[in-house]
Amino acid sequence: MRDQLPELPLRAIQDRRPAVHCLTNTVVQGITANMLLALGAIPSMSADISEVVDFVRGADALLVNLGTLDPVRKQAIERAIEQAQAKSIPWILDPVLVDRAPARLGYARELLALGPTVIRGNKGEIAALGPDATSLAQSSGAVVAVTGATDFITDGARELTLEGGHSLMSRVTGIGCAGTALIAAFCAVSRPDAMFTAVTEGLTLLGSAGERAAISNAGPGGFAAAILDQIYQSSQSSLG
Amino acid sequence: MRDQLPELPLRAIQDRRPAVHCLTNTVVQGITANMLLALGAIPSMSADISEVVDFVRGADALLVNLGTLDPVRKQAIERAIEQAQAKSIPWILDPVLVDRAPARLGYARELLALGPTVIRGNKGEIAALGPDATSLAQSSGAVVAVTGATDFITDGARELTLEGGHSLMSRVTGIGCAGTALIAAFCAVSRPDAMFTAVTEGLTLLGSAGERAAISNAGPGGFAAAILDQIYQSSQSSLG
Amino acid sequence: MRDQLPELPLRAIQDRRPAVHCLTNTVVQGITANMLLALGAIPSMSADISEVVDFVRGADALLVNLGTLDPVRKQAIERAIEQAQAKSIPWILDPVLVDRAPARLGYARELLALGPTVIRGNKGEIAALGPDATSLAQSSGAVVAVTGATDFITDGARELTLEGGHSLMSRVTGIGCAGTALIAAFCAVSRPDAMFTAVTEGLTLLGSAGERAAISNAGPGGFAAAILDQIYQSSQSSLG
Repeated sequence: MRDQLPELPLRAIQDRRPAVHCLTNTVVQGITANMLLALGAIPSMSADISEVVDFVRGADALLVNLGTLDPVRKQAIERAIEQAQAKSIPWILDPVLVDRAPARLGYARELLALGPTVIRGNKGEIAALGPDATSLAQSSGAVVAVTGATDFITDGARELTLEGGHSLMSRVTGIGCAGTALIAAFCAVSRPDAMFTAVTEGLTLLGSAGERAAISNAGPGGFAAAILDQIYQSSQSSLG
Repeated sequence: MRDQLPELPLRAIQDRRPAVHCLTNTVVQGITANMLLALGAIPSMSADISEVVDFVRGADALLVNLGTLDPVRKQAIERAIEQAQAKSIPWILDPVLVDRAPARLGYARELLALGPTVIRGNKGEIAALGPDATSLAQSSGAVVAVTGATDFITDGARELTLEGGHSLMSRVTGIGCAGTALIAAFCAVSRPDAMFTAVTEGLTLLGSAGERAAISNAGPGGFAAAILDQIYQSSQSSLG
Repeated sequence: MRDQLPELPLRAIQDRRPAVHCLTNTVVQGITANMLLALGAIPSMSADISEVVDFVRGADALLVNLGTLDPVRKQAIERAIEQAQAKSIPWILDPVLVDRAPARLGYARELLALGPTVIRGNKGEIAALGPDATSLAQSSGAVVAVTGATDFITDGARELTLEGGHSLMSRVTGIGCAGTALIAAFCAVSRPDAMFTAVTEGLTLLGSAGERAAISNAGPGGFAAAILDQIYQSSQSSLG
């Protein structure tokens, strides 16, 4: 059971309403935006080359999810990361399904060289990039989170395992991707030397919301609504 | 509290099942289609240049939302508007986040010159185009709606303020964009000289559905489902 | 009332967790992925030309939905079908709205020549391709399903009519498209000579889930969540 809510950073998110620009795939855009809004963050999602830099300029964190890729989007990703680095805001990489397609894996490796702040993937995805989470954290300089039945977080030196969450989380598309957006929001209100903690906070919130959502929902449809409600309740409680 | 339901136009929508072609961004396509279906209208969403004109030819109103832009989509938007004008059906502009990116603002200004029937935005978006709603209505010839905690509607001469709605509406992605689609459906069954009333009807329905949805839903997940249910109940009541 | 659940194939899906690659339109990607996950299948959705062949290589069935078309996507569709045929996995065609746009109808006809395993459409879509379901099944060699208030399935020789389902199914975007994905999952665990049965199983499950979801949901928002829950419950029951 994962029930400690990170009250202080949650309060910081309510006070500062961080803007998170999300370059993410079309399958999960809706749930990603809804999870950020439930949390109290402000999502934007344009991948258009003529405006992506302006959106990142106005953002407090950048999410790069590889679930949709084409030459135009790759160009947008690169400009967005460049702008994030120029502004010194965190950028978070979600290497969706890199274990399923070599072209995608090759591109993810190129992005590693640009120094992501955080990488969040499942076991297969991190293993493809890895060869394991600790090595990947050391070689990339990123905090690496491997999510699944248990979550594992490392910055190459420290390590943390989070139990809890619920199996229904794997039966709703985009819970993992949207969780990476939650991490981005926590990074946005954290100091640069506190990213390990920010990742832990984001995944703690997601897992505890999932556990509570599953109490009164036996199927993935009701559960998907309830996990948003739980995240919203946590954000509101931090104001009380 | 905003509880007067526009029974007559709701009944007209049930009788005529207007087709609304939506050139809208991928984040909100699902909720937009679902809100139109809940209302009794028929959504279509293709932005492909080879078929967009055919879809508009079969439609009763056109929605143009700027949430995703690229050169190909811009071309599709322009052909769609041309066809809407040739058919004399209303076309509704939703200038999403034009206050965040200069390129998007510039394009929105070009579209103003094509004479939208209605423009619906939030305060920042309308101010960027404006400089204010009344000026924008006068210069563009459109009915302008500024939505937020209160809604303001003007055609440059008349003005109306709608109280009500609920704060959870801002915690679900696409409620505003889908509300613009509702407006389009009401415009589709209204006479050309009754667009001010049609906009009022659409926003009245959305706000009252939001209020009722919030009564038994404390979070945005349950609320998002309930607002669709409320719109559907209103549409069914109009048949009774 | 359509209440016979196909327990054996449902059990096969739980045991084998078939991967269904979906080339489908952006409006319905979310509900399509969620319905496959609720069932126990594994969705993937990339349409990128550089990786679509790799995704199909790892898949057990391919869904081709024409709801979004552009020259790049057409190329991806063709490579995906080629790979599906090379692997001898079933590929299922959903000719969305071919009755609304001649360009789309022309492309659907080209795809017919590539020998889809199954075609699922509504009355208007099948009539546009047809001229009727039986002729279309005979000329294409596919099992053809016409869905609506009643469903009709034919392989050109056998015919079957399924009553049941619920009118709210037409008030949620993508229920039909996601139903085609369910069919694909049943095809994935079936022998090549059992496709007529697989289609029947998929539509039987969808219709019975819809009926049960409507019992305690009077509007499309709650219904959309409940139909996923019902599919999930059926999949879990098959394990009991």
